[in-house]
Amino acid sequence: MSDVFDHPWLGDLFGDAEGRAIWSPDRQLQHLLRIEAALTRAMGAAGTVETAEDTAAGIETAGIDTDALSAATRRDGLPIPELVRQLHAGAQTPEAIHTGATSQDILDTALALTLKETNVLIERRLDGLSTALAALGRTFGNESLMARTRMQAAVPTTVGQRLDSWSAPLPRHAARLSALRPQVEALQLGGAVGDRAAFGDAGDRIAAEMARRLELTDAPCWHTSRDSLAAWAALCAGIAGSLGKMGQDIALMAQQGVDEIALTGGGGSSAMPHKQNPVTAELLVTLARYAAGQSALMHQALVHEQERSGAAWMLEWMVLPGLAQATLRSLSAATDLCARIERIG
Amino acid sequence: MSDVFDHPWLGDLFGDAEGRAIWSPDRQLQHLLRIEAALTRAMGAAGTVETAEDTAAGIETAGIDTDALSAATRRDGLPIPELVRQLHAGAQTPEAIHTGATSQDILDTALALTLKETNVLIERRLDGLSTALAALGRTFGNESLMARTRMQAAVPTTVGQRLDSWSAPLPRHAARLSALRPQVEALQLGGAVGDRAAFGDAGDRIAAEMARRLELTDAPCWHTSRDSLAAWAALCAGIAGSLGKMGQDIALMAQQGVDEIALTGGGGSSAMPHKQNPVTAELLVTLARYAAGQSALMHQALVHEQERSGAAWMLEWMVLPGLAQATLRSLSAATDLCARIERIG
Amino acid sequence: MSDVFDHPWLGDLFGDAEGRAIWSPDRQLQHLLRIEAALTRAMGAAGTVETAEDTAAGIETAGIDTDALSAATRRDGLPIPELVRQLHAGAQTPEAIHTGATSQDILDTALALTLKETNVLIERRLDGLSTALAALGRTFGNESLMARTRMQAAVPTTVGQRLDSWSAPLPRHAARLSALRPQVEALQLGGAVGDRAAFGDAGDRIAAEMARRLELTDAPCWHTSRDSLAAWAALCAGIAGSLGKMGQDIALMAQQGVDEIALTGGGGSSAMPHKQNPVTAELLVTLARYAAGQSALMHQALVHEQERSGAAWMLEWMVLPGLAQATLRSLSAATDLCARIERIG
Amino acid sequence: MSDVFDHPWLGDLFGDAEGRAIWSPDRQLQHLLRIEAALTRAMGAAGTVETAEDTAAGIETAGIDTDALSAATRRDGLPIPELVRQLHAGAQTPEAIHTGATSQDILDTALALTLKETNVLIERRLDGLSTALAALGRTFGNESLMARTRMQAAVPTTVGQRLDSWSAPLPRHAARLSALRPQVEALQLGGAVGDRAAFGDAGDRIAAEMARRLELTDAPCWHTSRDSLAAWAALCAGIAGSLGKMGQDIALMAQQGVDEIALTGGGGSSAMPHKQNPVTAELLVTLARYAAGQSALMHQALVHEQERSGAAWMLEWMVLPGLAQATLRSLSAATDLCARIERIG
Repeated sequence: MSDVFDHPWLGDLFGDAEGRAIWSPDRQLQHLLRIEAALTRAMGAAGTVETAEDTAAGIETAGIDTDALSAATRRDGLPIPELVRQLHAGAQTPEAIHTGATSQDILDTALALTLKETNVLIERRLDGLSTALAALGRTFGNESLMARTRMQAAVPTTVGQRLDSWSAPLPRHAARLSALRPQVEALQLGGAVGDRAAFGDAGDRIAAEMARRLELTDAPCWHTSRDSLAAWAALCAGIAGSLGKMGQDIALMAQQGVDEIALTGGGGSSAMPHKQNPVTAELLVTLARYAAGQSALMHQALVHEQERSGAAWMLEWMVLPGLAQATLRSLSAATDLCARIERIG
Repeated sequence: MSDVFDHPWLGDLFGDAEGRAIWSPDRQLQHLLRIEAALTRAMGAAGTVETAEDTAAGIETAGIDTDALSAATRRDGLPIPELVRQLHAGAQTPEAIHTGATSQDILDTALALTLKETNVLIERRLDGLSTALAALGRTFGNESLMARTRMQAAVPTTVGQRLDSWSAPLPRHAARLSALRPQVEALQLGGAVGDRAAFGDAGDRIAAEMARRLELTDAPCWHTSRDSLAAWAALCAGIAGSLGKMGQDIALMAQQGVDEIALTGGGGSSAMPHKQNPVTAELLVTLARYAAGQSALMHQALVHEQERSGAAWMLEWMVLPGLAQATLRSLSAATDLCARIERIG
Repeated sequence: MSDVFDHPWLGDLFGDAEGRAIWSPDRQLQHLLRIEAALTRAMGAAGTVETAEDTAAGIETAGIDTDALSAATRRDGLPIPELVRQLHAGAQTPEAIHTGATSQDILDTALALTLKETNVLIERRLDGLSTALAALGRTFGNESLMARTRMQAAVPTTVGQRLDSWSAPLPRHAARLSALRPQVEALQLGGAVGDRAAFGDAGDRIAAEMARRLELTDAPCWHTSRDSLAAWAALCAGIAGSLGKMGQDIALMAQQGVDEIALTGGGGSSAMPHKQNPVTAELLVTLARYAAGQSALMHQALVHEQERSGAAWMLEWMVLPGLAQATLRSLSAATDLCARIERIG
Repeated sequence: MSDVFDHPWLGDLFGDAEGRAIWSPDRQLQHLLRIEAALTRAMGAAGTVETAEDTAAGIETAGIDTDALSAATRRDGLPIPELVRQLHAGAQTPEAIHTGATSQDILDTALALTLKETNVLIERRLDGLSTALAALGRTFGNESLMARTRMQAAVPTTVGQRLDSWSAPLPRHAARLSALRPQVEALQLGGAVGDRAAFGDAGDRIAAEMARRLELTDAPCWHTSRDSLAAWAALCAGIAGSLGKMGQDIALMAQQGVDEIALTGGGGSSAMPHKQNPVTAELLVTLARYAAGQSALMHQALVHEQERSGAAWMLEWMVLPGLAQATLRSLSAATDLCARIERIG
């Protein structure tokens, strides 16, 4: 069934176009070239290379042979050596390209750019969901609802209380994201082993200029300290998990016999045309459990040995795209679901 | 960075063409049509529908509008209602299509076909790897090797003993797979709620005929009992995990100062041209950890409530394609790695 | 709240006395002494040591200073060096004790004895649960029950079909366990690095005799090939997962408004005396999710580097006791729950 | 082998006395009584009960029959109904005890007290480790060390850079903990379904007074919003994960042939007396992987349905004690390890 996010017919169920675009290979390649160009310009500004502007412009418009990139990636474990080779081949001053940097600098910084775009979208969607829940509260908040504890009818409460339990975590998630953003939207520049040694005494100036151009935090080298990435993954799982609770509640409310909610646009069945399945509510549960599992692997990847762990680092590449897209989708699905609530309580 | 298996330049590092083809949407669509056609023919053979052969032939050659499939899947949570609608629209006797079945029958049976193809490839690759390890044993088995326990030099042993620790699990994995194959390569046919009621008393005959045509096990309805799928996932994680041990060993042996192995074709570095990185060995560790995490989610999905859990079922769709491809790749990567060993011990 | 299995008031909720006894430190210490004695006797039979019977009898009745064991374990990472030191101190022929073996031989073999006791109990409980479910089927199997798919009422079916979905996995789990038992109930004897070198040419005879005395499989050295242990962990998660489905179903059936089941002896509430909470049903879901998570860690532990990985091995020690006890408890809880069903359908 | 934290000889390897005391049943029972007493006093201050001080004093000194607690917990799924019954039986004004509260209020607030004690200890240990690493930096920071990327020798760097990669995450973890503390060290008081309805209009005043007496945050009801607990679990896994990297590095540095570190007090072997195993370094890796797995389960538990999920809540009880103790131990083990470094580089 292949990857559910890029899938021709599952893709818009499990993911969405905005999330896919941010995490697409095309966008990543743009980031890689933008970063190499920023490095060249920053070295130019620091006076360590010449003809920086011409070279940088050439990088930005370079046509990349992705077949060659693929063959080399299989061998090298990453695309940068071949990407740099292609950039060097098309440049008049190849020494102005990538000099002093290492593959991880480019790939980690590209990840920072991707996370920044993701974070902006998460923030916007958290806002949108809060707004949608608040609107539900205004419409249905005073309706009566049977509270249920341990799956059993307890005593009556209001719809507003149930809605509060869905919206309460959202500002906390937003605050956590706000605190994490500068840590994960951070330039990585370290050179071969993380000490910026190949830049001589210009390393910190080059890093500051790159960060300024890329609109990233000018941070010390973080190539082996992946704690902020793991914290970000946990935050994603936290968001998806909170929405999984909302989804589970709605799926339970939609049961015949409970009948505490009416949804429009529910899923059809091939065998039972009378049914209206609460597919989006179930999806929220699915995405929550998926995100919890992927976040765990990001924490396994914290055991990132020495100055670069190929094994731990590649595990991040396997896990992050799906985790991010699942989180984004859980937010859009939850908001969609709010709009499809015709009655609650 | 999107899905690593279908990625334009990461795809041949983390996956391979054979695995990708088996798990591709195109192949899945072929399975779906093949299954609907087999159902129609089986109903024809049981005498419950007419013009079965013409209708089945029409199904097999139907052109499917995947855009419409995508839009409907987002709403319905699965593609079958819309697929059936399209098939019905193009058929003279729509009542001969899908009658008595439900979406899960078609999708679970398609999964069984996909798993069968995967299993054949796993078996072939387990064989290939055993052969490769045996060849290494003949060449290097009597060489001396410092055994290491708890990362410390212990006492000398032979290369053969280390190789044995890599190959010992393989026949056990093969035997486990052999025992599992009939359980996961099993027809699912239950109708709306799993009792084959809509087929009247012809249900078991129709199932038997479908299983015969599809070369699957003729099994009782398994739509809510996912234990065999979870066992299969665990076996995948077991295989990838055993090869992760081999990968970790090789990465450790390749360290300067230890120097117990020489590899050709190691990965190049953009900053340190002198390096030969044991990328494939590291990849085996990555795939092992990834597979362990995905297998856990398949076990979370065992809590598959009532007669169909949308939430638990969709989690399987998110997890299985990557788990299968990672397992297949771990086998091909391990075999590649054997071929690149120039010296060991 | 400390460990839930040994807890003064949570212990009989999450665990039970039989499981606790099997996995207790006292029982483990008995196994360690029994194994050292069997080794001594086996060496005696092979003629490599003298006064074996007297020495073995002394081992079996030795009083062990567990405070000293604790202090040494903190330093050495395992208790065997200190245990052997104490045994040597009390023996007339210390050279007849532990000679040729290593710590892992004793600890892994003790694990095999523990797993054997666990497996016997799992088998017995699987049988008991099957019997209980069959009895429910005889009483209630023909009652009507509304099938539910995706949390929605579908079409009526029978209680028997729902019961079948609970019992169907049990014989498959029993068959998997039967196939695994000889693989995990296997003697480990390898010596320092797994080659039995210190026993000279008597190694295989000593191993065979030990296995015979301990009623374990006489297997080749498996100290670094943990695939059977991981498969066992997955089987535990499979069993607990299948019962988690049953628990989730029952919790859903017990909802007011659904009312498809009546249970006696449900849990009381401190705030709502009218409530009868389906605690045991919920517990099955809890144990299922817990077991899935612990099984994942056993698969992470497959990356067991070189001839002994302290890191991966210690992870097994952290995970296995809880996983085993949760699995055993899920079986007893499911059987208890069957006995408390007054009405179903 | 039972729980490793409370184990007679494994307990001081995997845990320590301070962590054990915080998470012990005895300490939890003290918290439960302290909370019931605080509730009684707060109700007295609010004027909703009489003779509050006498009753509260009686609660604090009550002797609890833990056998009865155990039997009731097995039935009720939690100890509070029986605890309250015992308190009521011994009180002259039972209506002044527990009135208006529910079991979850008491247990969640007790967890908050336990987390507060844990957090204080984590903070102290983070400080201690930072100090120890800084001291190593002063002694060895300028020594040369071969940087290793992808397990291969790269180019020389300094010991200081490696030490920086170990200490860099610590202030970030401390800042995250500082932000989380008020969220997890928060009073839970909601009554039967979370609306404080049984307290009439005195609910918020009673909560404020309880929080003041217990030195917890006076927070809105959080019984179904477990996001802060999951974030705390992730932070634990983040801390243990960062220290797992340090442990893995040290185990690799201690290899013969690499020889970049000399440790005292390493673990002895029963078969190879010449060995000094880097047990504590390995333990850090073990604890990191364990914590990652347990944190994942806390995220699975975010799907906490309706006004109280027995299933999700009980999963927290299974997971948190081990996760907390593993995290505490990883900090003390890392600090111990620093003290045992005789040479580095």
